[in-house]
Amino acid sequence: MKKELFIRLLSERRFKELKEDLMTMKAVDIASLLSQLDDKEIAIVFRLVPKDKAAEVFSNMNSSMQSTLVEIFSEKELRELLDNLYMDDTVDMLEELPANLVTRILNVTPQNERNIINQLLNYPDDSAGSIMTTEYVDLSPEWTVAKAMNHIKETGIHKETIYTCYVTWQRKLIGIVSAKDLMTSDDNTLIKDIMETELISVSTHTDQEEVAGLFRKYDLLALPVIDTDNRLVGIVTVDDAMDVVIDEATEDITKMAAVAPSEKTYFETSSFAHAKRRIPWLLVLMFSSIITGSIITKYENAFAAIPLLVSFIPMLMDTGGNCGSQSSTLIIRGLALDEVHFGDFFRVVFKEFQISIIVGIVLATANGLRIFIEYHNSGLAIVIALSLIVTVTLSKIIGCTLPLFAKKIGLDPALMASPLITTLVDTCSIIVYFNIATTIFKI
Amino acid sequence: MKKELFIRLLSERRFKELKEDLMTMKAVDIASLLSQLDDKEIAIVFRLVPKDKAAEVFSNMNSSMQSTLVEIFSEKELRELLDNLYMDDTVDMLEELPANLVTRILNVTPQNERNIINQLLNYPDDSAGSIMTTEYVDLSPEWTVAKAMNHIKETGIHKETIYTCYVTWQRKLIGIVSAKDLMTSDDNTLIKDIMETELISVSTHTDQEEVAGLFRKYDLLALPVIDTDNRLVGIVTVDDAMDVVIDEATEDITKMAAVAPSEKTYFETSSFAHAKRRIPWLLVLMFSSIITGSIITKYENAFAAIPLLVSFIPMLMDTGGNCGSQSSTLIIRGLALDEVHFGDFFRVVFKEFQISIIVGIVLATANGLRIFIEYHNSGLAIVIALSLIVTVTLSKIIGCTLPLFAKKIGLDPALMASPLITTLVDTCSIIVYFNIATTIFKI
Repeated sequence: MKKELFIRLLSERRFKELKEDLMTMKAVDIASLLSQLDDKEIAIVFRLVPKDKAAEVFSNMNSSMQSTLVEIFSEKELRELLDNLYMDDTVDMLEELPANLVTRILNVTPQNERNIINQLLNYPDDSAGSIMTTEYVDLSPEWTVAKAMNHIKETGIHKETIYTCYVTWQRKLIGIVSAKDLMTSDDNTLIKDIMETELISVSTHTDQEEVAGLFRKYDLLALPVIDTDNRLVGIVTVDDAMDVVIDEATEDITKMAAVAPSEKTYFETSSFAHAKRRIPWLLVLMFSSIITGSIITKYENAFAAIPLLVSFIPMLMDTGGNCGSQSSTLIIRGLALDEVHFGDFFRVVFKEFQISIIVGIVLATANGLRIFIEYHNSGLAIVIALSLIVTVTLSKIIGCTLPLFAKKIGLDPALMASPLITTLVDTCSIIVYFNIATTIFKI
Repeated sequence: MKKELFIRLLSERRFKELKEDLMTMKAVDIASLLSQLDDKEIAIVFRLVPKDKAAEVFSNMNSSMQSTLVEIFSEKELRELLDNLYMDDTVDMLEELPANLVTRILNVTPQNERNIINQLLNYPDDSAGSIMTTEYVDLSPEWTVAKAMNHIKETGIHKETIYTCYVTWQRKLIGIVSAKDLMTSDDNTLIKDIMETELISVSTHTDQEEVAGLFRKYDLLALPVIDTDNRLVGIVTVDDAMDVVIDEATEDITKMAAVAPSEKTYFETSSFAHAKRRIPWLLVLMFSSIITGSIITKYENAFAAIPLLVSFIPMLMDTGGNCGSQSSTLIIRGLALDEVHFGDFFRVVFKEFQISIIVGIVLATANGLRIFIEYHNSGLAIVIALSLIVTVTLSKIIGCTLPLFAKKIGLDPALMASPLITTLVDTCSIIVYFNIATTIFKI
C-alpha cells in the first residue's frame, strides 16, 4: 500500500480501514512502513497489526524502533510479544537494546527461557551458536510417521522450521527426517526406518562463514548445532544462512577497500563512526607510501637530467596497482568460496606468471608504440615497455601470493587487497622504472 | 571417506564395498570425489552409485565430467538419468555441453519435455526464467487438505520442493499454501480457505538479482514465476537463490577490481582467458593515467625548483585513491543491497563531505607534523596538509557520486570502483597539489 494513503488514514484516525490494510500486508513491508513514521504513530499502528503477525513485524524493525516499543509496552503486551518471538530474534534484539530495557524484558521472561537466552547471549559473535534458534521439531526414533505428523500438528506452529525434523535419543542427535519423507511415507512406518543417519552438523563455536558454506554445498534448509557431547542444542535455518552469506560478502568488500567493517547500513552509521572506520588504514597506507616518495628522491639526478621521466610515474604506479588488485581480488574471492587453497600456491603463482607475460606484452606493445610515435624516442619506448612488463609481473605475483600467505598465518586475506597491494607495488614499480631508465640512458 | 581408501578399493575391484560406501555418502561429496578420478574410473564408479542418488551426483559434476558420461552412456542409461534430473539441472547441463551431445540427449527426450527444455533454454541469461524449475506442486482451490496431502504423497517425490504448494485455477496462480499450513490444518479444511492470496511473484524476465533480493527480504523458500497472462510457469527455489547471491557478489567484486566477470572458477579459467578478461580495463586505465602524467609535465618548473615536491606525488595519489575507493565501495555495496538509492544523492554527498572533513584534518595533521619535524619547513608542511584536505574531500565526493550516476543511467555501479576512481582522483590530486605548491612557494 502507498505510504501517503496510509498516513492519511492514520491522521484521520480511520483505524478500521488501517487494520484491514495491515491484514493483507507482509510483515517486512509493515516494518519498513513503520520506519517512516514517528514514535507515537509507530505505537498506534503496531497495536493495530494482527496478533499473528505482530512478532514477525517486530523482529523486522531496527533496534531504535524496538526500543521505543519496549519502553511504552505494558507488561502484558511485552509478555505476549516475547511468547511469539523466535528465540534467535529475541536474542538479536537483546544484543542491541539499552541495559534498562533488557532488564525490563528479562523480568517478564520465565526462568527456563531466561536461562536459554543467557546461554545464547554468551556464544561468540559470528559463531553458529549466535545465529541458531532453539525452536525445532524433535522426534523419537520409535514413533510412527502418523504420530510424528500429529506431534507436528500440535507443536509445529511455534517452530521456526518444521521441514527438517530432528530425531534424538537421550537428547543426543541420532538422525534427521525431512517433512518430505514424512509426507510421502506410509503412516505406520517407524521414524528410525526412514531417518537419515549420515548427518551434517556443526558445533556451537563453528564460524558462521563455515556454516553458510555447508548450506551452499549441500543445499540445506536447516543445519543442526550440537554441543561437545553430541547433544542437539539448536538449529540454523536457511534464511539466516543467506543473511550470513550477504554479510560476509559485504565484510570482505569493505575490508578490501580498507574500511573496517560495520554491521550497520551506510545511513545507520554516523559520519563520525564512518571516519573512525576509514582513518586507521588510511594512516598506515599514507605513511607507507611515503617510503615510495623517499625512494623517488634517490633518483633526483635521473629526473633532473630527463624531466619527462617524472610524467610516467602515475601511469606505471596505477598500472602496477591495478594488475596487483586484479590478482589479489580473484585469489581473495577464491579463498572465500573455498575454490583456492594454500596448497595451490605454486599452481597459482605459475598461472599468474603466465597471465603476466601475456598482459605485460600487450600493455608494453601498446604503450611503447604510442611513445615511439609521440616522442620519436626509441630509448624511452624501450624503457617504458620493459618497466611495464616487469611491473606487471611483479604486481601479479605480489597480488596473488599475499592473500595466500595471509590465509596460511590466520589473517583475513581480504586485508591483502587493492589498497595494501597498491602501496607495495608502487615502491617496486618506482625502483624497477628508475633502474631500467638509468641503465638504458646511462645516467 | 578418504580418497586414498576409495582409490584402493577401486584398483582392487572391490566393488561391493565401494557400493556400500557410496550408499552413505552425500551426492555432492561423491561428485567431488569423482572429479579426482580419470574418465574410465568415473564411469565405473558412477554406475555403482545408488539409483536414487545418481541424478543428484550428476547435477553436481562439472560439465567436462558430464560430457564424458553422456558420451559413454547407453540410450537406456541416458533416459533413466534424464527422468530423474530436475528440469533446471537438465537445462544447466545442456547449456554447457557440446552440440553433438545435446542432440544425443534431446533424441531420447519425449516431445513434451523437449518443448519445455527449448523454452527454458531461450530465457535470457540471469533472468528468473533461466534459473527456475518447472517441477512444483500444483493444487486446486476446491481440494481438501487431506486430498492435497494425498496428491503430494503420490507426486511429491519428483518435485524440487513440496514446502510451498501453488494453487492454480485455469493455469493462473491464485494462491500459495505452505506445507506447514497443510500439516497443521484439519483434514477437511478446503485449500481455498487456508491459501494465502497476497502473492509475491516475478515474471520470467525478472533479473535474477531482483529475485535473490525478494528471497532475502521475505525469507522465502520458493518464489513463483508467472508469464504475462499470470499463468504459473515455474518456481525458483532457495538453494538457487543462494547461488545467485554468491554469484552476484563475486561478479561485483571482480568488476570492482577491473576484471571482466566469469562464471567459471579461478582454476577452470585458462591463463589466456584470464588475460583476456583483465587487459581491456588495464589498457583504458593505462591510457587515462597518461593524462595525469602529461599534467605533471606542465609543472616541470615547480619540481625543477624544488625537487622534493616530486617525492610527495605517490603519497597524495595513493591517499586520494584510497579515500575515493572507500566511498565508492560503500555506495556500490549499498546500491547492490538496496540500502542506498539515487534519491539519496544529496544525503550521501553531505555525509561524505562531513566524513572528508574529519578524515582530511586527521591525515593532514599527522602528515603536516611529520613533515615539519623531519624537514623543519613549515611552508612544505602547510602545502602537504592543505593538499591532503582538498584531495580527501574531492576523492570522497567523486567516489560517492560516480556509482550513483552510473546506477541512474543504467550502467553497473560496480564499474565505478577503485581502479577508475583512482585514475580520476590522481589527476585531481596532482592539479590540487601543484597549484597549492606554486601559490604558497610563489614559483
